[in-house]
Amino acid sequence: MKITLKDGSVREYSEAISSADAAKDLSAGLYKSACAAVINGKVCDLRTLIAEDSDVTFLTFADSDGKKAYRHTASHVMAQAVLRIFPNAKLGVGPAIDNGFFYDFDLEGKSISPDELMKIEDEMRKIIKENLPIERFELPPDEAIKLMEEANQPYKAELISEHADKGEAISFYRQGEFVDLCAGPHLMSTGSLKAVKLTQCTGAYWRGDSAKAQLQRIYGTAFPKKSELDEYLLAVEEAKKRDHNKIGRELEYFTTVDVIGQGLPILLPKGATTVRTLQRFVEDTEEAGGYLLTKTPFMAKRELYKISGHWDHYRDGMFVMGDSDKWEDEGEEIFALRPMTCPFQFMAYLNRPRSYRDLPLRYNETSTLFRNEASGEMHGLIRVRQFTISEGHLAVRPDQLEEEFAGCLELAKYLLTTVGLEEDVSYRFSKWDENDRDKYIGSPEEWENVQGIMRNILDSLEINYTEEDGEAAFYGPKLDIQIKNVHGKEDTLITIQVDFQLAERFGMEYIDSDGQKKYPYVIHRTSLGCYERTLALLLEKYAGALPMWMMFEQVRVLPITDRTKEISETIAKEMRSRGIRCTVDGRSEKIGYKIREAQLEKIPYMLIIGDKEAEDGTVSVRSRKSGDLGTMPVTQFISEALEEIASKAKFSK
Amino acid sequence: MKITLKDGSVREYSEAISSADAAKDLSAGLYKSACAAVINGKVCDLRTLIAEDSDVTFLTFADSDGKKAYRHTASHVMAQAVLRIFPNAKLGVGPAIDNGFFYDFDLEGKSISPDELMKIEDEMRKIIKENLPIERFELPPDEAIKLMEEANQPYKAELISEHADKGEAISFYRQGEFVDLCAGPHLMSTGSLKAVKLTQCTGAYWRGDSAKAQLQRIYGTAFPKKSELDEYLLAVEEAKKRDHNKIGRELEYFTTVDVIGQGLPILLPKGATTVRTLQRFVEDTEEAGGYLLTKTPFMAKRELYKISGHWDHYRDGMFVMGDSDKWEDEGEEIFALRPMTCPFQFMAYLNRPRSYRDLPLRYNETSTLFRNEASGEMHGLIRVRQFTISEGHLAVRPDQLEEEFAGCLELAKYLLTTVGLEEDVSYRFSKWDENDRDKYIGSPEEWENVQGIMRNILDSLEINYTEEDGEAAFYGPKLDIQIKNVHGKEDTLITIQVDFQLAERFGMEYIDSDGQKKYPYVIHRTSLGCYERTLALLLEKYAGALPMWMMFEQVRVLPITDRTKEISETIAKEMRSRGIRCTVDGRSEKIGYKIREAQLEKIPYMLIIGDKEAEDGTVSVRSRKSGDLGTMPVTQFISEALEEIASKAKFSK
Repeated sequence: MKITLKDGSVREYSEAISSADAAKDLSAGLYKSACAAVINGKVCDLRTLIAEDSDVTFLTFADSDGKKAYRHTASHVMAQAVLRIFPNAKLGVGPAIDNGFFYDFDLEGKSISPDELMKIEDEMRKIIKENLPIERFELPPDEAIKLMEEANQPYKAELISEHADKGEAISFYRQGEFVDLCAGPHLMSTGSLKAVKLTQCTGAYWRGDSAKAQLQRIYGTAFPKKSELDEYLLAVEEAKKRDHNKIGRELEYFTTVDVIGQGLPILLPKGATTVRTLQRFVEDTEEAGGYLLTKTPFMAKRELYKISGHWDHYRDGMFVMGDSDKWEDEGEEIFALRPMTCPFQFMAYLNRPRSYRDLPLRYNETSTLFRNEASGEMHGLIRVRQFTISEGHLAVRPDQLEEEFAGCLELAKYLLTTVGLEEDVSYRFSKWDENDRDKYIGSPEEWENVQGIMRNILDSLEINYTEEDGEAAFYGPKLDIQIKNVHGKEDTLITIQVDFQLAERFGMEYIDSDGQKKYPYVIHRTSLGCYERTLALLLEKYAGALPMWMMFEQVRVLPITDRTKEISETIAKEMRSRGIRCTVDGRSEKIGYKIREAQLEKIPYMLIIGDKEAEDGTVSVRSRKSGDLGTMPVTQFISEALEEIASKAKFSK
Repeated sequence: MKITLKDGSVREYSEAISSADAAKDLSAGLYKSACAAVINGKVCDLRTLIAEDSDVTFLTFADSDGKKAYRHTASHVMAQAVLRIFPNAKLGVGPAIDNGFFYDFDLEGKSISPDELMKIEDEMRKIIKENLPIERFELPPDEAIKLMEEANQPYKAELISEHADKGEAISFYRQGEFVDLCAGPHLMSTGSLKAVKLTQCTGAYWRGDSAKAQLQRIYGTAFPKKSELDEYLLAVEEAKKRDHNKIGRELEYFTTVDVIGQGLPILLPKGATTVRTLQRFVEDTEEAGGYLLTKTPFMAKRELYKISGHWDHYRDGMFVMGDSDKWEDEGEEIFALRPMTCPFQFMAYLNRPRSYRDLPLRYNETSTLFRNEASGEMHGLIRVRQFTISEGHLAVRPDQLEEEFAGCLELAKYLLTTVGLEEDVSYRFSKWDENDRDKYIGSPEEWENVQGIMRNILDSLEINYTEEDGEAAFYGPKLDIQIKNVHGKEDTLITIQVDFQLAERFGMEYIDSDGQKKYPYVIHRTSLGCYERTLALLLEKYAGALPMWMMFEQVRVLPITDRTKEISETIAKEMRSRGIRCTVDGRSEKIGYKIREAQLEKIPYMLIIGDKEAEDGTVSVRSRKSGDLGTMPVTQFISEALEEIASKAKFSK
């Protein structure tokens, strides 16, 4: 029997061997660090027997699937610890996730206290020290259900019963007194775990359904080295400090209030001014790029969404007005808030007949959209129910598609580069899921054809992208520009979609040069994406110290004494008249106190005015970044500040 | 018996005399022109007997009530004509209105054709020529109902029966074979009418209720002189040409489409660009005036509107989401679109504690509002369901109220003057209606007190205003800046309101210099009002030829031949890079055709480029207003154009 390793080398064995033993045979180090193995393309336990010629790759914690096996084992250890402390706990699910793992427990309404969390963590360390061997076994479905019922684990029994009709054997893992329904893979023993940490406890619903039982979800993480765990925890602490949902509130960029509702943030003057600045920059850049601005209504009758397909394919995500029992009543006027701008902007195209000479037609709009997300999914400025987006639609002839697509991408890159996010993004080619056709409109042939065209465009633009099935819009494939927030969670910031269907649905024709009526391709695109989300990402990237050009308060003048208050006001007035946003802190506080406060508020420049400066017509300049910049004439400071604003510099001096 | 006239002169009569005879006694001219009389403060027929000492003023067509009597008589003559032609017609109501009169008829589903309208008009002229005396008589309610039932007039019978329980006598007017239920007053005979014209016929519902019978409403007007009628009809025609609902669509400023719905206009690139230009101008002016921009959500939970009072006092005007049978269910999350911005912007105030030193706090927002108006009330950009408004709220101390109120008014006047509407507005002091207290919140003492303060402010600012009861907001009195559209219909463009109630309801406190917690006054104000409405008024005022600075297309370059197309593009590109919005009409059409088209589109300047101009580096300039302006260097045109844009000139050269 031959085992072919990743590097192409081959080992021969006379009889079946577990992958653990195969690893041991290769090296003691590998045996110690291996978490799982890929055998003929399938991720497996190290305990899996290799009985025939096979390709084998060993996975360590450095591999994504190795990490998963490691942390999934940690989640079992946590469940075991919970059951030792709360013997009546009923287990939900407990997977490995990005950066760690969680497990859900039904504790009959009880919440876990921080003290109890520490107790569970201590118990986990004990279990690790016990170094219990982890075993895998299988049962027929009926016996599996019986086992779980006897163990008083009804959720597990429910899960098994859903698979029972397939008749396949159900796999379990056992370590000491603890048995869990699980597909694996897992480490060989609890002692293989090294550093573990429980991070938080939240509420969760069984199967994510708020109508079902409420569970306690305990999050944790695990690393092979204590130093790696410490490093990770430090990074998490740092990330929390930059979390826009924390600093954005502290710095008064936004707030939310219960009487308005979750996911409906209020942009306070700082946030509103930054968004306005970004919005004008985007609109001006688009105007220079030949875009035509529209301003279309935020709601429409159901009939519009029936044509676009939103009524059938997206209604759950929409705010629909009027009684739900009348939603299908032909005679009723049913309005819904828009989840997308497309069908509205198409009306501008339809306002007059179009010829091939009119194309490409590029429409842009600073557009507000509404999505009826579940309350639990709201997060700061990133997951919201109402947001404003740099929306746009281009109607293009087939021969214009590549150039216009490239133009959209170039525009997005230019804007991202200017605001400073370009280096943080990745590109995802989002395709349909041919196994889930009901979610999409159009024929498979059309989808494959357009995805082929789009792949060619992306390749010819030399974009470094990944491909993802099932992430397309329901009417066409798209390029998503992805970005991770400070916690590592990825979101879509910008999309550029190719749509070969809606023009026909809406009757958006043009007369081609041959006199024939044809339908254009429609490119749906955003240029800087959603302004609320962009603001959040900027706050996190710059830890609140946004580039000066987009800040609400660019300069603060700090008189040292009451004697220099008046000249401070005069200087501020002069700056404002030149377009610099500035204020005067005229309070009778010590100058050190005022500086500290301005520094905490991340004001790019503080101008300190004492008697000497007042006399000389100078200002003593302090920067949030570099501290004291020395004294200079007022006029010099103003021209340098204007230069920094006009150049949209990412960082102040 | 003494009759005291308006000029103070007194006439004595030995016995009762009709006011007609009294007029005749004064002068033949007065007798001929009198339409009605005011006897002891009450508007009466000329046939009313004066039997005791009385103050009498005679009303002619020049007086508003005289005009009403004249045109109300014309409406009776029209009804008589309709009954002669359609003997089965059932009469609805038929009042005099601004500029004319109407009458509603039930014709059993039949519509009146233009030919029939002319036939009715001819019959009216016949009835006028017949010079039938008009008589007034009264009946007890039961006999009145019987009379109308016998005449086969069920709507009239219905109206009478609603007053029957009062037992008062019911008055009728008769002319020839025609009898109508009517309170009067009327002229003395049909021959007193001179020039009549029927203008249009529309559908209307009995009592304005779409669940009731559909009627035909015929509109007409009447004047004592043919020349006055002709002048009026000409003005109406002119107004129609300027109607924004006509030219705004023709010039592609906006459109509406059935699948989106009425009252939800789509601003096409021209309209959206003008609104964006106005919006930036307003926001920048406000920023310079010390306002802080916010961007607040367009919807909120019902709980917010309960605090503000909108839920109880304005719900019918709101779009509420979710099933109506759950609107009062405490456990439900019920959202509604906002009809006003106030409670949202208050949240910015509430974001931190405030001291007397922080006031005044001035917040502004380019805010979108939603009002659930009835379908039949929609009109172009003026009556809409969604609109964008230059909203703002100021929290002020009592000692700051006058100055801040004056500041709001000054800002509004400055903006109105800049866009060119200032000369067209009037000022209305809108007060509460003390006889309809349920519509308002707060005590009568508070209302009287604040209205007193506000009157003092208006007087000290020397504003020339009228007072109107029952036009206040439900939370406070206001100054409305009123404007008439091209058809003479008055609307509110801008409001400045003083609110002494909502701060307390929302707990918006400040710590005063004496250490006490107090509530500020809140000034609710708009600065340029609703952008859609402003755009409509500007389109009507300038008949589409908007000031250059706010136009989508400021300059169009017209190459005379294909040879000058390239240089035309170069010139356009140069202008665009300097911030002038311009295009090139590069079609192979005759130059005269291109000029005509640009002229129809009201493009401020056309630059005509022939071989000569291309060679000399000049442009031949044509203005939409003055035609040929001669030839000049490109650079000169650009600097003159930039000057016109920067100065926000109302008219081009």
